[in-house]
Amino acid sequence: MPSVNPPRGMRDILPAEKSRRERVLSVIRDRYSAHGFDEIETPVMEEYARLHAGIGGDNEKLAFNVMKRGLDAEAIRAAADDPASLTDLGLRYDLTVPLARFYATHRAELPTVFRAIQIAPVWRAERPQKGRYRQFMQCDIDIIGDASSRAEAELIVASLDALDALQLTGASVRINDRRALDWMLEAFGFSEAERPGVLITIDKLDKVGAQGVIAELRSRDATVSAVDAFELFLTGEHPSVAEIFGGEQIRGMLPDGAPDEIVEHLVSLGTAVAAARDGAAVPLVFDPFLVRGMGYYTGTIFELAHPSVSYSLGGGGRYDGMIGRFLGQEVPAVGFSIGFERIVDLVDAQDLSEAAAVVIVHDRDVPMVELLAAKSAFVAEGARVRLEQRTKNVKGLLERAASDGYRQFAMLQAGQSAESLELKPLA
Amino acid sequence: MPSVNPPRGMRDILPAEKSRRERVLSVIRDRYSAHGFDEIETPVMEEYARLHAGIGGDNEKLAFNVMKRGLDAEAIRAAADDPASLTDLGLRYDLTVPLARFYATHRAELPTVFRAIQIAPVWRAERPQKGRYRQFMQCDIDIIGDASSRAEAELIVASLDALDALQLTGASVRINDRRALDWMLEAFGFSEAERPGVLITIDKLDKVGAQGVIAELRSRDATVSAVDAFELFLTGEHPSVAEIFGGEQIRGMLPDGAPDEIVEHLVSLGTAVAAARDGAAVPLVFDPFLVRGMGYYTGTIFELAHPSVSYSLGGGGRYDGMIGRFLGQEVPAVGFSIGFERIVDLVDAQDLSEAAAVVIVHDRDVPMVELLAAKSAFVAEGARVRLEQRTKNVKGLLERAASDGYRQFAMLQAGQSAESLELKPLA
Repeated sequence: MPSVNPPRGMRDILPAEKSRRERVLSVIRDRYSAHGFDEIETPVMEEYARLHAGIGGDNEKLAFNVMKRGLDAEAIRAAADDPASLTDLGLRYDLTVPLARFYATHRAELPTVFRAIQIAPVWRAERPQKGRYRQFMQCDIDIIGDASSRAEAELIVASLDALDALQLTGASVRINDRRALDWMLEAFGFSEAERPGVLITIDKLDKVGAQGVIAELRSRDATVSAVDAFELFLTGEHPSVAEIFGGEQIRGMLPDGAPDEIVEHLVSLGTAVAAARDGAAVPLVFDPFLVRGMGYYTGTIFELAHPSVSYSLGGGGRYDGMIGRFLGQEVPAVGFSIGFERIVDLVDAQDLSEAAAVVIVHDRDVPMVELLAAKSAFVAEGARVRLEQRTKNVKGLLERAASDGYRQFAMLQAGQSAESLELKPLA
Repeated sequence: MPSVNPPRGMRDILPAEKSRRERVLSVIRDRYSAHGFDEIETPVMEEYARLHAGIGGDNEKLAFNVMKRGLDAEAIRAAADDPASLTDLGLRYDLTVPLARFYATHRAELPTVFRAIQIAPVWRAERPQKGRYRQFMQCDIDIIGDASSRAEAELIVASLDALDALQLTGASVRINDRRALDWMLEAFGFSEAERPGVLITIDKLDKVGAQGVIAELRSRDATVSAVDAFELFLTGEHPSVAEIFGGEQIRGMLPDGAPDEIVEHLVSLGTAVAAARDGAAVPLVFDPFLVRGMGYYTGTIFELAHPSVSYSLGGGGRYDGMIGRFLGQEVPAVGFSIGFERIVDLVDAQDLSEAAAVVIVHDRDVPMVELLAAKSAFVAEGARVRLEQRTKNVKGLLERAASDGYRQFAMLQAGQSAESLELKPLA
């Protein structure tokens, strides 16, 4: 017999954790829906060729591939030099490839500006490590078909609203624009060919600090005068991250001569989000060194931060070149992905409202009819009810119920009516 | 480029349908939870050996198998005569194998009587046909560790409550007991060896009628005198299905001499469900010819019927031998599976409560700030809001919004405040 554990790198989700996850998902779903996003679902499998069309970046190598059905010995032998011929399908490793495929299939049935929600698991055959699993949830919203920065603003407002509803207040969004980064690197004197590599290095700023970035740029043999100029700027006196409140402040954080259109884009985004969050703080900060890894971003990029944790809780950006790939034409698109697995760990499930939850501990001799009638009486009043037959270890039984989210208990003896039950709080 | 369609036999779920599905799921989840069931989740993949351990019956052949990662040419050539050596994982084809594996892993962390909810997709590589998909949702509740018929009663009451909450009132549950069937076949004179085959034939009663069943039994070469006795009974004067109201009535539907314990079990189930559904009709009917295909049932079996459709909406039964298989010991278990894909087609999504849903159709020149402020004002009031830029075809735009579940619209011009918007109903 094989081990009874779940497959390597995957996990079972037990009742208390599952209930917390479902409640978090339902809050997110509700808030995104309120903001006019529509949820869709695609099959967990996509055709092998589509999963390996170059959109998925490094994740393509991590796909779980599904064997063709009914392979015979001859087909298998013939596949020795071409293993891909054994497979026709794979499990998705992200929700972007399926979204691009979905959009190509259903464009005619969708609104001109399509606001999509996708809340679904993805699979990656990564080396298992603490806190990282081979199956995990992704929670994406995307706006397809809107080239204006209103799309960015709608995504940011909806995401902040979802965090507020989860009582994760105090979140902020770091913003930058790939065009600003490009312009800045050009201004320092990096050649077009070396800019992608330079971006990869700058992306490590949070981890290795300014000196680490400069050292790595020098070891990369990047244009020396450019690195010198960049070092002067990076280590100079200017705030690296600040709240967006106007063009002058943004100009102050960029090298001289920043293009008007980029500055205006960032300011208008800040103003729009402020207007939408009427009264609430406007947690939008400009970070001229924010890169975000994905090579496919073409404009605004953003990352979600929360004071309680050092890592990002999600992020996204504009990627106009990609959604239309399977359609053979360019379609503007911008997306925001919430780090569901991280957020679920932060949310205090107790705080999310829940119905009354009652354990009825009954003697062994209570007739089934009385037992079910008592249970139904509480259910009818809106409670969640668990029946437990009394054991010697009533304490252990109640502790387990408490850890499963039950809040009250009552002891039931034969002949007792539901109305006469005395509810007591669980510790 | 491959086709942009989803993989063969699988489907995309568009917004209106997805929203209906999620609302139905949330009602089912809420009702099951109220009745003390706890939701769990397992990975979509299980080890190949576990999926092919004999629990899955015919479904084992329909599993999608996942290729081992990093196979080299030599391994592939060596696998020509043993294709299973290419795969280590598979996608689950039901929720029972994962539940048995989950229970073996986590028994110590679960209540003595464990009431499980599983709501999750399964995959079967069946020949695609109309209305049947290779990926579909299953919605199971199971009670593990309770050998008493209270478990059956709790499952039935919870399932009927879920259907009530979906406004699918008028459902009924057909009940039988595998032990009653066994006893009956023995009483007619079928040998122990031929009884499994006879059950398979009786299972077709709904489709081929009494004469069809008798003809097939004769062609099976079953004991002639037994078939004669069965024919006399089957075509005789007695109700084939009737509401359970007492032992005399149940005895009247079985051949003479039915064992007391079986009759009492059915009567006590009827009484308990009646008590739990205080006041509501008690839609429990006894059907002495109900078989349900699965070979693993050991006691009570039941099937959910609804007046609006001829097919069953779900069913289940007791299967004491199975959950403990991976544990190496017998554990009592009983389960009820709701036919989610069938139920979702019957439910009128409009009837399930929904927040106000508003489309704001705006002129092109409305500043982003005003637009987002107007949207946020409605969202803050609890509405779902979609922004649409006015096009020449406003009618088409509103029709699409209506089909996506939006109920009201307003036209917004530059300089207009959210308060001054006039909401009109969508056709």
